[in-house]
Amino acid sequence: MYRLVLVRHGESIFNLENRFTGWTDVDLSEKGVTEAKEAGKLLKQDEFVFDVAFTSYLKRAIKTLDYILEEMDLLWIPVHKTWQLNERHYGALQGLSKEATAVKYGADQVHLWRRGYDVLPPALTKEDDRYPRNDVKYRDVSDQFIPLTESLKETIVRVEDYWNKMIIPQITAGKRVIISAHGNSLRALVKYLDHMSDEEVIDLNIPTGTPLVYTLDEHFKPIEKYYLGSDRRTEKKIEKVADPGKIME
Amino acid sequence: MYRLVLVRHGESIFNLENRFTGWTDVDLSEKGVTEAKEAGKLLKQDEFVFDVAFTSYLKRAIKTLDYILEEMDLLWIPVHKTWQLNERHYGALQGLSKEATAVKYGADQVHLWRRGYDVLPPALTKEDDRYPRNDVKYRDVSDQFIPLTESLKETIVRVEDYWNKMIIPQITAGKRVIISAHGNSLRALVKYLDHMSDEEVIDLNIPTGTPLVYTLDEHFKPIEKYYLGSDRRTEKKIEKVADPGKIME
Repeated sequence: MYRLVLVRHGESIFNLENRFTGWTDVDLSEKGVTEAKEAGKLLKQDEFVFDVAFTSYLKRAIKTLDYILEEMDLLWIPVHKTWQLNERHYGALQGLSKEATAVKYGADQVHLWRRGYDVLPPALTKEDDRYPRNDVKYRDVSDQFIPLTESLKETIVRVEDYWNKMIIPQITAGKRVIISAHGNSLRALVKYLDHMSDEEVIDLNIPTGTPLVYTLDEHFKPIEKYYLGSDRRTEKKIEKVADPGKIME
Repeated sequence: MYRLVLVRHGESIFNLENRFTGWTDVDLSEKGVTEAKEAGKLLKQDEFVFDVAFTSYLKRAIKTLDYILEEMDLLWIPVHKTWQLNERHYGALQGLSKEATAVKYGADQVHLWRRGYDVLPPALTKEDDRYPRNDVKYRDVSDQFIPLTESLKETIVRVEDYWNKMIIPQITAGKRVIISAHGNSLRALVKYLDHMSDEEVIDLNIPTGTPLVYTLDEHFKPIEKYYLGSDRRTEKKIEKVADPGKIME
Protein backbone atom coordinates (compact mmCIF):
# COMPACT_ATOMS: atom_id res chain seq x y z
CA MET A 1 0.00 0.00 0.00
CA TYR A 2 1.22 3.43 -0.91
CA ARG A 3 0.22 6.93 0.15
CA LEU A 4 0.53 9.84 -2.22
CA VAL A 5 -0.28 13.53 -1.70
CA LEU A 6 -1.09 15.94 -4.51
CA VAL A 7 -1.41 19.67 -3.97
CA ARG A 8 -2.39 22.39 -6.39
CA HIS A 9 -0.44 25.64 -5.84
CA GLY A 10 -2.03 28.41 -3.81
CA GLU A 11 -3.71 31.36 -5.50
CA SER A 12 -1.42 33.15 -7.97
CA ILE A 13 -1.36 36.77 -9.07
CA PHE A 14 -3.07 35.77 -12.33
CA ASN A 15 -5.71 33.68 -10.51
CA LEU A 16 -6.43 36.83 -8.53
CA GLU A 17 -6.55 38.99 -11.66
CA ASN A 18 -8.63 36.35 -13.50
CA ARG A 19 -6.15 36.05 -16.38
CA PHE A 20 -5.09 32.98 -18.38
CA THR A 21 -1.81 31.75 -16.93
CA GLY A 22 -0.49 28.51 -18.45
CA TRP A 23 3.31 28.60 -18.51
CA THR A 24 3.47 32.27 -17.50
CA ASP A 25 5.72 32.20 -14.45
CA VAL A 26 3.69 34.35 -12.06
CA ASP A 27 4.16 34.48 -8.31
CA LEU A 28 1.75 33.47 -5.55
CA SER A 29 -0.61 36.10 -4.24
CA GLU A 30 -0.57 36.89 -0.52
CA LYS A 31 -3.57 34.58 -0.13
CA GLY A 32 -1.69 31.91 -2.08
CA VAL A 33 1.18 32.07 0.41
CA THR A 34 -1.27 31.69 3.29
CA GLU A 35 -2.94 28.73 1.57
CA ALA A 36 0.43 27.02 1.08
CA LYS A 37 1.44 27.50 4.72
CA GLU A 38 -1.94 26.22 5.87
CA ALA A 39 -1.55 23.12 3.72
CA GLY A 40 1.82 22.50 5.39
CA LYS A 41 0.32 22.94 8.84
CA LEU A 42 -2.51 20.49 8.06
CA LEU A 43 -0.07 17.88 6.76
CA LYS A 44 2.15 18.29 9.80
CA GLN A 45 -0.79 18.11 12.17
CA ASP A 46 -1.90 14.83 10.59
CA GLU A 47 1.67 13.53 10.90
CA PHE A 48 2.42 13.17 7.23
CA VAL A 49 6.08 12.73 6.32
CA PHE A 50 7.59 12.81 2.83
CA ASP A 51 10.83 11.38 1.51
CA VAL A 52 10.82 13.06 -1.86
CA ALA A 53 8.91 15.84 -3.62
CA PHE A 54 8.09 16.64 -7.22
CA THR A 55 7.11 19.97 -8.70
CA SER A 56 7.08 21.95 -11.95
CA TYR A 57 9.44 24.61 -13.32
CA LEU A 58 6.97 27.32 -12.29
CA LYS A 59 7.53 29.34 -9.14
CA ARG A 60 3.93 29.25 -7.92
CA ALA A 61 4.21 25.45 -7.56
CA ILE A 62 7.82 25.49 -6.31
CA LYS A 63 7.08 28.10 -3.66
CA THR A 64 3.89 26.33 -2.56
CA LEU A 65 6.00 23.21 -2.05
CA ASP A 66 8.72 25.14 -0.19
CA TYR A 67 6.19 26.71 2.19
CA ILE A 68 4.69 23.27 2.85
CA LEU A 69 8.09 21.64 3.44
CA GLU A 70 9.16 24.48 5.71
CA GLU A 71 6.06 24.07 7.89
CA MET A 72 6.76 20.32 8.05
CA ASP A 73 10.48 20.82 8.79
CA LEU A 74 11.28 18.87 5.63
CA LEU A 75 13.18 21.48 3.62
CA TRP A 76 16.10 19.03 3.42
CA ILE A 77 14.34 16.32 1.34
CA PRO A 78 15.15 16.02 -2.38
CA VAL A 79 12.91 18.06 -4.68
CA HIS A 80 12.69 17.15 -8.36
CA LYS A 81 11.56 19.93 -10.70
CA THR A 82 10.34 19.27 -14.23
CA TRP A 83 8.62 21.10 -17.09
CA GLN A 84 6.48 17.96 -17.52
CA LEU A 85 4.46 18.89 -14.42
CA ASN A 86 3.90 22.46 -15.68
CA GLU A 87 0.40 23.79 -16.10
CA ARG A 88 -1.23 23.18 -19.49
CA HIS A 89 0.17 25.69 -22.01
CA TYR A 90 -2.56 28.17 -22.89
CA GLY A 91 -1.08 29.37 -26.19
CA ALA A 92 -1.87 32.93 -27.24
CA LEU A 93 -4.42 33.27 -24.44
CA GLN A 94 -1.64 33.43 -21.82
CA GLY A 95 -1.71 36.72 -19.96
CA LEU A 96 -5.11 37.78 -21.36
CA SER A 97 -8.00 38.73 -19.13
CA LYS A 98 -10.63 35.99 -18.99
CA GLU A 99 -13.42 38.56 -19.01
CA ALA A 100 -12.09 40.43 -22.04
CA THR A 101 -11.50 37.17 -23.89
CA ALA A 102 -15.08 36.07 -23.17
CA VAL A 103 -16.41 39.39 -24.43
CA LYS A 104 -14.32 39.12 -27.61
CA TYR A 105 -14.86 35.44 -28.48
CA GLY A 106 -18.01 34.63 -26.54
CA ALA A 107 -18.36 32.66 -23.31
CA ASP A 108 -19.05 29.40 -25.18
CA GLN A 109 -15.79 29.54 -27.11
CA VAL A 110 -13.84 30.36 -23.96
CA HIS A 111 -15.56 27.53 -22.13
CA LEU A 112 -14.53 25.17 -24.94
CA TRP A 113 -10.90 26.32 -24.81
CA ARG A 114 -10.85 25.90 -21.06
CA ARG A 115 -12.76 22.69 -20.72
CA GLY A 116 -12.66 20.86 -24.07
CA TYR A 117 -10.58 17.68 -23.77
CA ASP A 118 -8.66 17.92 -27.03
CA VAL A 119 -9.37 21.54 -27.94
CA LEU A 120 -6.36 23.78 -28.63
CA PRO A 121 -6.41 27.44 -27.63
CA PRO A 122 -5.06 29.80 -30.35
CA ALA A 123 -1.34 29.03 -30.87
CA LEU A 124 1.61 31.32 -30.22
CA THR A 125 3.96 32.15 -33.07
CA LYS A 126 7.63 31.27 -32.61
CA GLU A 127 8.47 34.98 -32.56
CA ASP A 128 6.29 35.54 -29.52
CA ASP A 129 8.07 36.38 -26.26
CA ARG A 130 5.81 33.85 -24.61
CA TYR A 131 7.18 31.00 -26.78
CA PRO A 132 8.95 28.71 -24.27
CA ARG A 133 11.97 28.27 -26.57
CA ASN A 134 12.77 31.91 -25.73
CA ASP A 135 12.91 31.09 -21.99
CA VAL A 136 16.21 29.80 -20.52
CA LYS A 137 14.24 27.34 -18.33
CA TYR A 138 13.39 25.18 -21.32
CA ARG A 139 16.75 25.26 -23.07
CA ASP A 140 17.34 21.53 -22.42
CA VAL A 141 13.86 20.50 -23.57
CA SER A 142 13.86 19.16 -27.13
CA ASP A 143 11.89 21.04 -29.79
CA GLN A 144 9.23 18.35 -30.16
CA PHE A 145 8.09 18.97 -26.57
CA ILE A 146 8.04 22.78 -26.66
CA PRO A 147 4.38 23.79 -27.10
CA LEU A 148 2.89 26.69 -29.04
CA THR A 149 -0.42 25.74 -27.41
CA GLU A 150 -1.68 22.65 -25.66
CA SER A 151 -4.88 20.66 -25.18
CA LEU A 152 -5.66 18.90 -21.92
CA LYS A 153 -5.10 15.65 -23.83
CA GLU A 154 -1.53 16.67 -24.70
CA THR A 155 -0.88 17.80 -21.14
CA ILE A 156 -1.97 14.39 -19.93
CA VAL A 157 0.52 12.64 -22.24
CA ARG A 158 3.55 14.47 -20.83
CA VAL A 159 2.39 14.17 -17.21
CA GLU A 160 1.73 10.42 -17.54
CA ASP A 161 5.13 9.95 -19.14
CA TYR A 162 6.83 11.63 -16.17
CA TRP A 163 4.65 9.76 -13.68
CA ASN A 164 5.63 6.39 -15.16
CA LYS A 165 9.32 7.11 -15.64
CA MET A 166 10.19 9.22 -12.62
CA ILE A 167 7.52 9.07 -9.90
CA ILE A 168 6.37 5.42 -9.95
CA PRO A 169 9.93 4.11 -9.35
CA GLN A 170 10.22 6.28 -6.23
CA ILE A 171 6.86 5.14 -4.88
CA THR A 172 7.60 1.46 -5.47
CA ALA A 173 10.97 1.97 -3.75
CA GLY A 174 8.95 2.88 -0.65
CA LYS A 175 9.39 6.65 -0.81
CA ARG A 176 6.54 8.80 0.46
CA VAL A 177 5.82 11.29 -2.31
CA ILE A 178 4.27 14.77 -2.47
CA ILE A 179 3.57 16.45 -5.80
CA SER A 180 3.02 20.21 -5.96
CA ALA A 181 1.67 21.17 -9.36
CA HIS A 182 -1.17 22.82 -11.29
CA GLY A 183 -4.89 22.51 -12.01
CA ASN A 184 -4.40 20.67 -15.29
CA SER A 185 -1.24 18.68 -14.58
CA LEU A 186 -2.98 17.34 -11.47
CA ARG A 187 -6.20 16.61 -13.40
CA ALA A 188 -3.98 14.50 -15.64
CA LEU A 189 -2.74 12.49 -12.68
CA VAL A 190 -6.16 12.09 -11.12
CA LYS A 191 -7.63 10.96 -14.45
CA TYR A 192 -4.91 8.33 -14.67
CA LEU A 193 -5.20 7.11 -11.07
CA ASP A 194 -9.02 7.07 -11.04
CA HIS A 195 -9.33 5.62 -14.56
CA MET A 196 -11.59 8.51 -15.57
CA SER A 197 -12.90 8.74 -19.10
CA ASP A 198 -12.00 11.70 -21.35
CA GLU A 199 -15.47 13.07 -20.62
CA GLU A 200 -15.35 12.65 -16.86
CA VAL A 201 -12.08 14.55 -16.48
CA ILE A 202 -13.67 17.65 -18.02
CA ASP A 203 -15.81 18.11 -14.92
CA LEU A 204 -12.98 17.40 -12.49
CA ASN A 205 -11.82 20.40 -10.46
CA ILE A 206 -9.06 20.46 -7.91
CA PRO A 207 -9.05 23.27 -5.34
CA THR A 208 -5.93 25.36 -4.66
CA GLY A 209 -3.70 24.70 -1.66
CA THR A 210 -5.70 21.70 -0.43
CA PRO A 211 -3.76 18.42 -0.05
CA LEU A 212 -5.42 15.55 -1.93
CA VAL A 213 -4.48 12.30 -0.21
CA TYR A 214 -4.51 8.97 -2.06
CA THR A 215 -4.07 5.53 -0.60
CA LEU A 216 -3.13 3.15 -3.41
CA ASP A 217 -2.82 -0.62 -3.50
CA GLU A 218 0.27 -2.33 -4.93
CA HIS A 219 -1.16 -1.96 -8.45
CA PHE A 220 -1.70 1.77 -7.88
CA LYS A 221 -5.44 1.31 -7.65
CA PRO A 222 -6.97 3.93 -5.30
CA ILE A 223 -8.32 2.45 -2.05
CA GLU A 224 -9.10 5.79 -0.45
CA LYS A 225 -9.04 9.40 -1.57
CA TYR A 226 -9.81 12.57 0.38
CA TYR A 227 -9.01 16.24 0.69
CA LEU A 228 -7.25 17.21 3.90
CA GLY A 229 -8.90 19.84 6.06
CA SER A 230 -12.37 21.14 6.63
CA ASP A 231 -14.80 19.43 4.26
CA ARG A 232 -16.98 22.47 3.97
CA ARG A 233 -14.12 24.74 2.99
CA THR A 234 -12.91 22.34 0.34
CA GLU A 235 -16.35 21.95 -1.16
CA LYS A 236 -16.70 25.71 -1.37
CA LYS A 237 -13.39 25.94 -3.21
CA ILE A 238 -14.39 23.26 -5.69
CA GLU A 239 -17.60 25.14 -6.48
CA LYS A 240 -15.62 28.28 -7.11
CA VAL A 241 -13.26 26.59 -9.54
CA ALA A 242 -16.08 24.80 -11.35
CA ASP A 243 -18.34 27.78 -11.82
CA PRO A 244 -18.00 28.78 -15.49
CA GLY A 245 -19.93 31.98 -14.77
CA LYS A 246 -16.92 33.24 -12.90
CA ILE A 247 -15.24 34.31 -16.10
CA MET A 248 -18.10 36.71 -16.79
CA GLU A 249 -18.14 38.24 -13.33
CA MET B 1 37.88 28.54 -17.37
CA TYR B 2 35.21 28.05 -14.75
CA ARG B 3 33.36 30.37 -12.43
CA LEU B 4 32.17 29.24 -9.04
CA VAL B 5 30.24 31.13 -6.35
CA LEU B 6 30.31 30.23 -2.66
CA VAL B 7 28.02 31.84 -0.11
CA ARG B 8 27.86 31.42 3.62
CA HIS B 9 24.28 31.49 4.98
CA GLY B 10 22.95 34.74 6.41
CA GLU B 11 22.89 35.35 10.16
CA SER B 12 21.07 32.60 12.07
CA ILE B 13 19.17 32.75 15.34
CA PHE B 14 22.15 31.14 17.09
CA ASN B 15 24.64 33.54 15.47
CA LEU B 16 22.48 36.30 16.88
CA GLU B 17 22.34 34.68 20.32
CA ASN B 18 26.09 33.88 20.17
CA ARG B 19 25.59 30.15 20.74
CA PHE B 20 27.47 27.19 19.26
CA THR B 21 25.44 25.88 16.34
CA GLY B 22 27.09 23.06 14.36
CA TRP B 23 24.40 20.68 13.12
CA THR B 24 21.63 22.33 15.18
CA ASP B 25 19.03 23.16 12.55
CA VAL B 26 18.23 26.75 13.48
CA ASP B 27 16.48 29.24 11.25
CA LEU B 28 17.80 32.48 9.78
CA SER B 29 17.32 35.65 11.80
CA GLU B 30 15.46 38.55 10.21
CA LYS B 31 18.86 40.07 9.38
CA GLY B 32 19.91 36.75 7.86
CA VAL B 33 16.92 36.83 5.51
CA THR B 34 17.84 40.37 4.44
CA GLU B 35 21.45 39.34 3.87
CA ALA B 36 20.35 36.43 1.68
CA LYS B 37 18.04 38.59 -0.42
CA GLU B 38 20.79 41.19 -0.82
CA ALA B 39 23.21 38.53 -1.99
CA GLY B 40 20.66 37.48 -4.61
CA LYS B 41 20.19 41.07 -5.75
CA LEU B 42 23.97 41.59 -6.08
CA LEU B 43 24.36 38.40 -8.11
CA LYS B 44 21.48 39.37 -10.37
CA GLN B 45 22.78 42.90 -10.80
CA ASP B 46 26.16 41.51 -11.91
CA GLU B 47 24.37 39.17 -14.32
CA PHE B 48 25.39 35.91 -12.73
CA VAL B 49 23.45 32.85 -13.84
CA PHE B 50 23.60 29.37 -12.32
CA ASP B 51 22.71 25.99 -13.77
CA VAL B 52 22.87 23.97 -10.58
CA ALA B 53 23.10 24.63 -6.85
CA PHE B 54 24.45 22.71 -3.88
CA THR B 55 23.60 23.15 -0.23
CA SER B 56 23.57 21.34 3.11
CA TYR B 57 20.76 19.59 5.01
CA LEU B 58 20.42 22.63 7.29
CA LYS B 59 17.63 25.14 6.74
CA ARG B 60 19.76 28.25 7.27
CA ALA B 61 21.80 27.30 4.17
CA ILE B 62 18.81 25.98 2.18
CA LYS B 63 16.75 29.10 2.83
CA THR B 64 19.67 31.40 2.04
CA LEU B 65 19.97 29.61 -1.30
CA ASP B 66 16.21 29.81 -1.93
CA TYR B 67 16.13 33.56 -1.25
CA ILE B 68 19.09 34.05 -3.61
CA LEU B 69 17.53 31.92 -6.37
CA GLU B 70 14.21 33.69 -5.99
CA GLU B 71 15.83 37.11 -6.44
CA MET B 72 17.63 35.75 -9.53
CA ASP B 73 14.46 34.12 -10.93
CA LEU B 74 16.25 30.77 -10.81
CA LEU B 75 14.02 28.82 -8.42
CA TRP B 76 13.60 26.18 -11.14
CA ILE B 77 17.25 25.02 -11.30
CA PRO B 78 18.21 21.70 -9.67
CA VAL B 79 19.32 21.97 -6.04
CA HIS B 80 21.37 19.15 -4.50
CA LYS B 81 21.25 18.91 -0.71
CA THR B 82 23.78 16.90 1.28
CA TRP B 83 24.86 16.38 4.90
CA GLN B 84 28.46 16.53 3.61
CA LEU B 85 28.17 20.32 3.23
CA ASN B 86 26.80 20.71 6.77
CA GLU B 87 28.56 22.95 9.25
CA ARG B 88 31.28 21.32 11.33
CA HIS B 89 29.64 19.28 14.13
CA TYR B 90 30.34 21.02 17.43
CA GLY B 91 29.75 18.01 19.70
CA ALA B 92 28.46 18.69 23.18
CA LEU B 93 29.00 22.42 22.73
CA GLN B 94 26.03 22.66 20.34
CA GLY B 95 23.37 24.97 21.72
CA LEU B 96 25.58 26.34 24.51
CA SER B 97 26.22 30.03 24.94
CA LYS B 98 29.69 31.02 23.79
CA GLU B 99 30.05 33.45 26.66
CA ALA B 100 29.04 30.93 29.32
CA THR B 101 31.31 28.31 27.80
CA ALA B 102 34.24 30.75 27.84
CA VAL B 103 33.56 31.59 31.47
CA LYS B 104 33.43 27.90 32.39
CA TYR B 105 36.39 26.58 30.38
CA GLY B 106 38.38 29.75 29.77
CA ALA B 107 38.68 31.77 26.58
CA ASP B 108 41.87 29.94 25.53
CA GLN B 109 40.19 26.53 25.59
CA VAL B 110 37.19 27.85 23.65
CA HIS B 111 39.49 29.48 21.11
CA LEU B 112 41.26 26.14 20.69
CA TRP B 113 37.96 24.29 20.15
CA ARG B 114 36.84 26.90 17.66
CA ARG B 115 40.06 27.45 15.78
CA GLY B 116 42.33 24.44 16.36
CA TYR B 117 42.75 22.47 13.13
CA ASP B 118 42.44 18.98 14.50
CA VAL B 119 40.99 19.73 17.92
CA LEU B 120 37.77 17.95 18.89
CA PRO B 121 35.14 19.73 21.00
CA PRO B 122 33.73 17.53 23.82
CA ALA B 123 31.81 14.63 22.23
CA LEU B 124 28.09 13.91 22.49
CA THR B 125 26.96 10.58 23.90
CA LYS B 126 24.79 8.39 21.66
CA GLU B 127 21.88 8.92 24.05
CA ASP B 128 21.96 12.67 23.48
CA ASP B 129 19.02 14.17 21.59
CA ARG B 130 21.57 16.10 19.57
CA TYR B 131 23.19 12.88 18.26
CA PRO B 132 22.49 12.98 14.50
CA ARG B 133 21.48 9.30 14.43
CA ASN B 134 18.35 10.43 16.32
CA ASP B 135 17.41 12.84 13.51
CA VAL B 136 15.41 11.52 10.53
CA LYS B 137 17.53 13.67 8.17
CA TYR B 138 20.53 11.41 8.62
CA ARG B 139 18.77 8.06 8.49
CA ASP B 140 20.44 7.16 5.17
CA VAL B 141 23.93 8.20 6.31
CA SER B 142 26.03 5.22 7.39
CA ASP B 143 27.19 5.02 11.00
CA GLN B 144 30.85 5.67 10.22
CA PHE B 145 29.96 9.17 9.01
CA ILE B 146 27.66 10.18 11.86
CA PRO B 147 29.74 12.41 14.17
CA LEU B 148 29.65 12.71 17.95
CA THR B 149 31.96 15.70 17.51
CA GLU B 150 34.15 16.91 14.67
CA SER B 151 37.44 18.72 14.09
CA LEU B 152 37.90 21.11 11.18
CA LYS B 153 40.24 18.47 9.71
CA GLU B 154 37.42 15.89 9.67
CA THR B 155 34.97 18.41 8.22
CA ILE B 156 37.42 19.04 5.39
CA VAL B 157 37.62 15.32 4.56
CA ARG B 158 33.84 14.97 4.00
CA VAL B 159 33.56 18.27 2.12
CA GLU B 160 36.47 17.40 -0.21
CA ASP B 161 34.97 13.99 -0.85
CA TYR B 162 31.68 15.57 -1.95
CA TRP B 163 33.47 18.23 -3.98
CA ASN B 164 35.41 15.63 -5.93
CA LYS B 165 32.57 13.17 -6.46
CA MET B 166 29.57 15.43 -6.97
CA ILE B 167 30.54 19.04 -7.69
CA ILE B 168 33.63 18.73 -9.92
CA PRO B 169 31.75 16.61 -12.51
CA GLN B 170 29.08 19.30 -12.82
CA ILE B 171 31.65 22.08 -13.23
CA THR B 172 33.65 20.18 -15.86
CA ALA B 173 30.36 19.50 -17.69
CA GLY B 174 30.08 23.27 -18.09
CA LYS B 175 27.49 23.90 -15.38
CA ARG B 176 27.67 27.19 -13.51
CA VAL B 177 27.61 26.29 -9.83
CA ILE B 178 26.59 28.08 -6.62
CA ILE B 179 27.22 26.52 -3.21
CA SER B 180 25.31 27.78 -0.17
CA ALA B 181 26.87 26.39 2.98
CA HIS B 182 28.51 27.19 6.32
CA GLY B 183 31.55 28.89 7.84
CA ASN B 184 33.52 25.68 8.22
CA SER B 185 32.33 23.68 5.23
CA LEU B 186 33.26 26.68 3.06
CA ARG B 187 36.62 27.08 4.79
CA ALA B 188 37.22 23.47 3.75
CA LEU B 189 36.54 24.32 0.12
CA VAL B 190 38.60 27.49 0.14
CA LYS B 191 41.54 25.64 1.77
CA TYR B 192 41.36 23.08 -1.00
CA LEU B 193 41.03 25.56 -3.88
CA ASP B 194 43.70 27.95 -2.55
CA HIS B 195 46.09 25.16 -1.48
CA MET B 196 46.22 26.61 2.03
CA SER B 197 48.26 24.91 4.72
CA ASP B 198 46.60 23.50 7.85
CA GLU B 199 47.90 26.56 9.70
CA GLU B 200 46.72 29.14 7.16
CA VAL B 201 43.12 27.91 7.17
CA ILE B 202 42.86 28.61 10.90
CA ASP B 203 42.95 32.34 10.23
CA LEU B 204 40.53 32.18 7.29
CA ASN B 205 37.14 33.78 7.89
CA ILE B 206 34.25 33.93 5.46
CA PRO B 207 31.59 36.60 6.04
CA THR B 208 27.87 35.71 6.07
CA GLY B 209 25.66 36.36 3.05
CA THR B 210 28.46 37.66 0.84
CA PRO B 211 29.02 35.84 -2.46
CA LEU B 212 32.65 34.71 -2.88
CA VAL B 213 33.40 34.50 -6.60
CA TYR B 214 36.15 32.26 -7.96
CA THR B 215 37.46 32.12 -11.49
CA LEU B 216 39.30 28.82 -11.95
CA ASP B 217 41.48 27.54 -14.78
CA GLU B 218 40.90 24.10 -16.31
CA HIS B 219 42.94 22.50 -13.50
CA PHE B 220 40.77 24.27 -10.90
CA LYS B 221 43.59 26.64 -10.02
CA PRO B 222 42.18 30.03 -8.92
CA ILE B 223 42.88 32.84 -11.38
CA GLU B 224 40.77 35.41 -9.59
CA LYS B 225 38.87 35.55 -6.30
CA TYR B 226 36.73 38.32 -4.83
CA TYR B 227 33.77 39.06 -2.61
CA LEU B 228 30.80 40.59 -4.36
CA GLY B 229 29.56 43.94 -3.08
CA SER B 230 31.00 46.87 -1.22
CA ASP B 231 34.60 46.16 -0.21
CA ARG B 232 34.27 48.16 2.94
CA ARG B 233 31.23 46.29 4.14
CA THR B 234 32.81 42.91 3.50
CA GLU B 235 36.00 43.85 5.33
CA LYS B 236 33.98 44.94 8.32
CA LYS B 237 32.17 41.60 8.35
CA ILE B 238 35.43 39.66 8.19
CA GLU B 239 36.78 41.59 11.17
CA LYS B 240 33.66 40.77 13.13
CA VAL B 241 33.95 37.05 12.45
CA ALA B 242 37.68 36.99 13.19
CA ASP B 243 37.57 38.85 16.46
CA PRO B 244 38.01 36.23 19.20
CA GLY B 245 37.08 38.82 21.81
CA LYS B 246 33.51 38.67 20.56
CA ILE B 247 32.81 35.57 22.61
CA MET B 248 33.54 37.50 25.78
CA GLU B 249 31.39 40.49 24.94
